[in-house]
Amino acid sequence: MKASFKAKANIALIKYWGKTNRELNLPAVGSISITLDSLWSDTEVVFDESLERDFLYINGEDFSNPIDRIKSCLDLIRKEAKVDFFAKIISKNNFPTASGLASSASGLAAIVLAASKALNLELSPRKLSIIARHGSGSAARSIYSGFVEMFVGKNSDGSDSFAKQIAPASHWPLEVVIAVTDTKKKEIGSRAAMELSALTSPFYNEWIKSSVSDLAIARDAIMNKDFESLSSITQSNCIKMHSVIMTSNPPVLYWNQATLACIKMIMDLQKSGVPVFFTVDAGPQVKAICKPESTVMISDLLKKIPGVKKMIISTIDNSLV
Amino acid sequence: MKASFKAKANIALIKYWGKTNRELNLPAVGSISITLDSLWSDTEVVFDESLERDFLYINGEDFSNPIDRIKSCLDLIRKEAKVDFFAKIISKNNFPTASGLASSASGLAAIVLAASKALNLELSPRKLSIIARHGSGSAARSIYSGFVEMFVGKNSDGSDSFAKQIAPASHWPLEVVIAVTDTKKKEIGSRAAMELSALTSPFYNEWIKSSVSDLAIARDAIMNKDFESLSSITQSNCIKMHSVIMTSNPPVLYWNQATLACIKMIMDLQKSGVPVFFTVDAGPQVKAICKPESTVMISDLLKKIPGVKKMIISTIDNSLV
Repeated sequence: MKASFKAKANIALIKYWGKTNRELNLPAVGSISITLDSLWSDTEVVFDESLERDFLYINGEDFSNPIDRIKSCLDLIRKEAKVDFFAKIISKNNFPTASGLASSASGLAAIVLAASKALNLELSPRKLSIIARHGSGSAARSIYSGFVEMFVGKNSDGSDSFAKQIAPASHWPLEVVIAVTDTKKKEIGSRAAMELSALTSPFYNEWIKSSVSDLAIARDAIMNKDFESLSSITQSNCIKMHSVIMTSNPPVLYWNQATLACIKMIMDLQKSGVPVFFTVDAGPQVKAICKPESTVMISDLLKKIPGVKKMIISTIDNSLV
Repeated sequence: MKASFKAKANIALIKYWGKTNRELNLPAVGSISITLDSLWSDTEVVFDESLERDFLYINGEDFSNPIDRIKSCLDLIRKEAKVDFFAKIISKNNFPTASGLASSASGLAAIVLAASKALNLELSPRKLSIIARHGSGSAARSIYSGFVEMFVGKNSDGSDSFAKQIAPASHWPLEVVIAVTDTKKKEIGSRAAMELSALTSPFYNEWIKSSVSDLAIARDAIMNKDFESLSSITQSNCIKMHSVIMTSNPPVLYWNQATLACIKMIMDLQKSGVPVFFTVDAGPQVKAICKPESTVMISDLLKKIPGVKKMIISTIDNSLV
């Protein structure tokens, strides 16, 4: 009983930050992302009667302890398949792990997709998205390609808290230039930082409240291919999220000097008419979203910034649902 | 009818950001500052019947047009003295102008102090503070030395919106290390950025609300010489203000790469037990407030950071009221 799956990372244009239920991993806000073609987790899941617990290896390193987030996904899949075998998961990321490049999104999505394939389950994307959400909120989005929206839902059991594709990649072929400014594992993970924000940032409630209109604006901008509107709302939503994180107590500063330099360069390019905007997830990497004609120029400029260690260029993924 | 005065700049530990009345320049929040010994504006004011309008020269450069903020202070002083002569103001700053180093605080305070001296007025510090406030909110604090609090007041005419000294410099001889990371005039001035924040930042109302408890915590920390408490509230208040500024639309980013590098270094020093904390005004300069035994070491470390152009070291001023 084994199978492999290659799932893609995604980056949120309208960010997921905050939970309403820790156990079910229910998000406090909806989010909108694009799934990236170039960043993936290639994962093999082997269910085996002889195993005494679940194992996880990422790029050859043992990540089995703790494995709670993954176990909750595997348990849901085992329940669907009515089996109780443990699993060995061998995953490979083609990009740095746990440094704000959405490795948990692609990683968890790949596990859920491979595990359900290994057990011959024929689950709907919606069901897969719900299962992936239990492991990582952003993984619920990586079940899909193209432009994806994650819904908060209303049900207390999380049954309507899932993602779905709102437009395929072909709808609007934007590209993404990622400036990797630090490949180290971040000092504080998203999960812990989210909890700290909710407990201590004076701006947390306003962040949650304002997300509803941000989502509506971004959704409309994507539907209408309104680049300027998507630029503006993506950037303001990103800065809002980082402001909530920075105003936590103690403060969390995910940005480094190169992060700030990249942001400033992208804002300067915008002013001179280049179709590009930035977003930064819970980490120091800068993602420049642009029209294809500007990709190479933007990458060439960003990679010259001191502190930028590596560039990754990606189209929007169209391989999945 | 001429006189000179040397007034000192101040840096706010609890920040002034936002107005409730543009004409009277009434602040939306109270603030607490320390007046600095090393940064000053030395200003001569000459009232002269033969002048046809007011003139202002700063470091030899003509700043006469527009001069509204200064004119409103001069008008109040002329009214007190019952004269209607115009004035020529010759001011010299010993530090960069309009780059987030409080040149408007020391500059306006010096004008008010010199002008009232030139006209032989015997105004109380409170009256002088109110007059200075009409020109610049932070100038109301630079009328005093030591630790200074600015009150919001309740009266709609601004008659109880003034500053006063809450402790002299001798109460707690802290020192300040300023890392100057950019000497250019900032792209958007405080006044315009404040208005933009009030109109567009989703966090502006929460900023105003939370300032009341920040002031109380800082006031107590100063009275009790509680370094740790003052560190924590000063830093969080600073990050909050910059978050409000950054989440304005369009976003305003006063920080540059060196700003962020200095902040991170100061946070690292804190973690290793060095008694120091940071604040950043509406500009890119970083102010490290510390106990005197660490001043030299902190200055030596900060000046090595790429992008730091100049270091200024200051004690708290004790020359004025």
